[in-house]
Amino acid sequence: MNRLQQVLDALVERIDTPAPIVLADVMQGNIDRIQGFADRHDLKVRPHVKTHKCVEIGRRQIEAGAVGITAGNVGEAEVFAAAGFDDIFLAYPIWAAGTKRARIRRLAESARLRVGADNVAAIEALADAMGDEPDRLQVVIEVDCGARRSGAPPEAAGDLALAARKRGLVPVGVFTYPGHGCVGRDARRRAAQDQEAALTTAVRGLEGVGVSAEVVSAGSTPTLEFSTSSVITEIRPGEYVFGDLNNARLGACTEDQIALFVAGTVVSDWVPGQVILDVGNKALSKEGSPEIGYGGVAGTKAVLSKVNEYHGFLLLPDGEFRPSVGTVVPVVPNHVCPVVLGFEELIVTDSTGTSLERWPVDARGFLN
Amino acid sequence: MNRLQQVLDALVERIDTPAPIVLADVMQGNIDRIQGFADRHDLKVRPHVKTHKCVEIGRRQIEAGAVGITAGNVGEAEVFAAAGFDDIFLAYPIWAAGTKRARIRRLAESARLRVGADNVAAIEALADAMGDEPDRLQVVIEVDCGARRSGAPPEAAGDLALAARKRGLVPVGVFTYPGHGCVGRDARRRAAQDQEAALTTAVRGLEGVGVSAEVVSAGSTPTLEFSTSSVITEIRPGEYVFGDLNNARLGACTEDQIALFVAGTVVSDWVPGQVILDVGNKALSKEGSPEIGYGGVAGTKAVLSKVNEYHGFLLLPDGEFRPSVGTVVPVVPNHVCPVVLGFEELIVTDSTGTSLERWPVDARGFLN
Repeated sequence: MNRLQQVLDALVERIDTPAPIVLADVMQGNIDRIQGFADRHDLKVRPHVKTHKCVEIGRRQIEAGAVGITAGNVGEAEVFAAAGFDDIFLAYPIWAAGTKRARIRRLAESARLRVGADNVAAIEALADAMGDEPDRLQVVIEVDCGARRSGAPPEAAGDLALAARKRGLVPVGVFTYPGHGCVGRDARRRAAQDQEAALTTAVRGLEGVGVSAEVVSAGSTPTLEFSTSSVITEIRPGEYVFGDLNNARLGACTEDQIALFVAGTVVSDWVPGQVILDVGNKALSKEGSPEIGYGGVAGTKAVLSKVNEYHGFLLLPDGEFRPSVGTVVPVVPNHVCPVVLGFEELIVTDSTGTSLERWPVDARGFLN
Repeated sequence: MNRLQQVLDALVERIDTPAPIVLADVMQGNIDRIQGFADRHDLKVRPHVKTHKCVEIGRRQIEAGAVGITAGNVGEAEVFAAAGFDDIFLAYPIWAAGTKRARIRRLAESARLRVGADNVAAIEALADAMGDEPDRLQVVIEVDCGARRSGAPPEAAGDLALAARKRGLVPVGVFTYPGHGCVGRDARRRAAQDQEAALTTAVRGLEGVGVSAEVVSAGSTPTLEFSTSSVITEIRPGEYVFGDLNNARLGACTEDQIALFVAGTVVSDWVPGQVILDVGNKALSKEGSPEIGYGGVAGTKAVLSKVNEYHGFLLLPDGEFRPSVGTVVPVVPNHVCPVVLGFEELIVTDSTGTSLERWPVDARGFLN
């Protein structure tokens, strides 16, 4: 991955560190590859925007063929709706309370809005929020397929769809998240099988109460290559757009497909076997462990063994490179999604490092 | 800490979750208490704004008697300088390159600017950045006292001060960060002793080359009660303003002094012994471990055993409370500093939950 160091060397006088650098050509390759995969398997792509929170990138996903977007909270959905995105799935068990009631109502006026629900109380709250226009809101029942996070048991999906219909909401299908597929290639395949079984059961449940499952929606970047069952209608990958070390370890992307890294500068080098980078947990988040580290310098074996807020402790294995103070290095995150949270903009270039654009992280913050 | 639940119950119709809630009266008590402590020991207070990134809170710290502020990066310093703060210490080994050169020059025009440095190359880069006005920039030499992060050996401080003076910069003193004091009460006291020893050596080093150490600056919230040595002139605590579970565990604050918590809603409850909150690692960061958890619900033994981006897994010990879907609960972070990163604003109330103001997190983002 020394290509990343070359890109940085070309950019270094025009940027400040820490900064998230996006290789637009590599990113476009990821967008096109997954769209092509989905097209071949007759799947719709509905990318999760939590990974980039950037309108410009969402547009490129739509241009490539995505049918709409997935958002993780009302704030993200609002930012993208305001930018003209008109087909939004809030793949989250939304609780409509406080000022969220009016916000959901407004969203449902400006876009075709689908929201997740996994229990009757939440469905009642959504219906209350919609006032006398519950039929403007489509509901997708969330079922659990083994991640033991949110989601009803698949057998409960029919009753939940019925509860939604009874209140005038429009049940349109089911979704799940195979989050237990993030621990190895076999786990990915098994989680995808669990996902298929859960969705199949849930679809039968809906059909059993006379609700047709127009939407049968599956996660995620690590499992998508195994999510080609005929029951599934759409996939909601997020991380695929950038890739990261976790996905590379899982075999869900190659290191050459990683399209985002954080440029960091060596600011101190007094401790033997270690230098300090200006990339800490506010830039990179604290994803990893002391064992695998919290991110690595591309093209080397050096990993961050610890991250304070503005300091990254880069451990230098024996015989490895020892960058001097002032050197700018490319840090590849373990998990890319939290990285955009702390930055106003992405520095967008290409694999030659010549072009330079700044794209706002439009939905930065906006967590509720 | 059931007081926090009462505050939430009073607020709940007016806010959306997740949201960071600040109790202004508790916060003001923290500001006044530490200022009083410092006054009694003849120490200046220069609070670190990385914890709150909020101009309004910085103003209250100044009104209470703080001599200026500490910032962790150029972006934070710029936001506070633009808001009228005119005495800023960038307590970080800044590397002046790229567009940071001009930014540092501009900052030094609008405020009395002090920056950290721990090596000769960084000093040279700072002097180059200042062009023909190096004397507008004050340099504080960073020394290490045992945290093994940034900072030169204390014995090197004199040479570094001399290198700064040689280039026309103005060396004014030394600083250190006793970060190894974050593991228990004894560690706090020992780290403070290490800090005193390192600063004493460094001051002698400056005096040895004819530089007077006007500034002898010490961290941090956990160590400050032991940082009353006569060699120290100022303290730079950050976390004291809000407090958090880590500081409570260390004995550096009481639970009643915690002034910030994150309001979260139970969104799903299908898994026995667990509910899912809408407080994940983007809201709370990933500070903690599976053993101690990633944050706890005030007034209960329930802790988050895992945090995904928008999902917090709240483990419910046997016989403990089991909040139903839709319940809003107060989540107290382990480490408060990363929490403000993901929010546009702080919801500011008081211990009765009646008042409600929204203060912008002005320096949210701005990591470089």
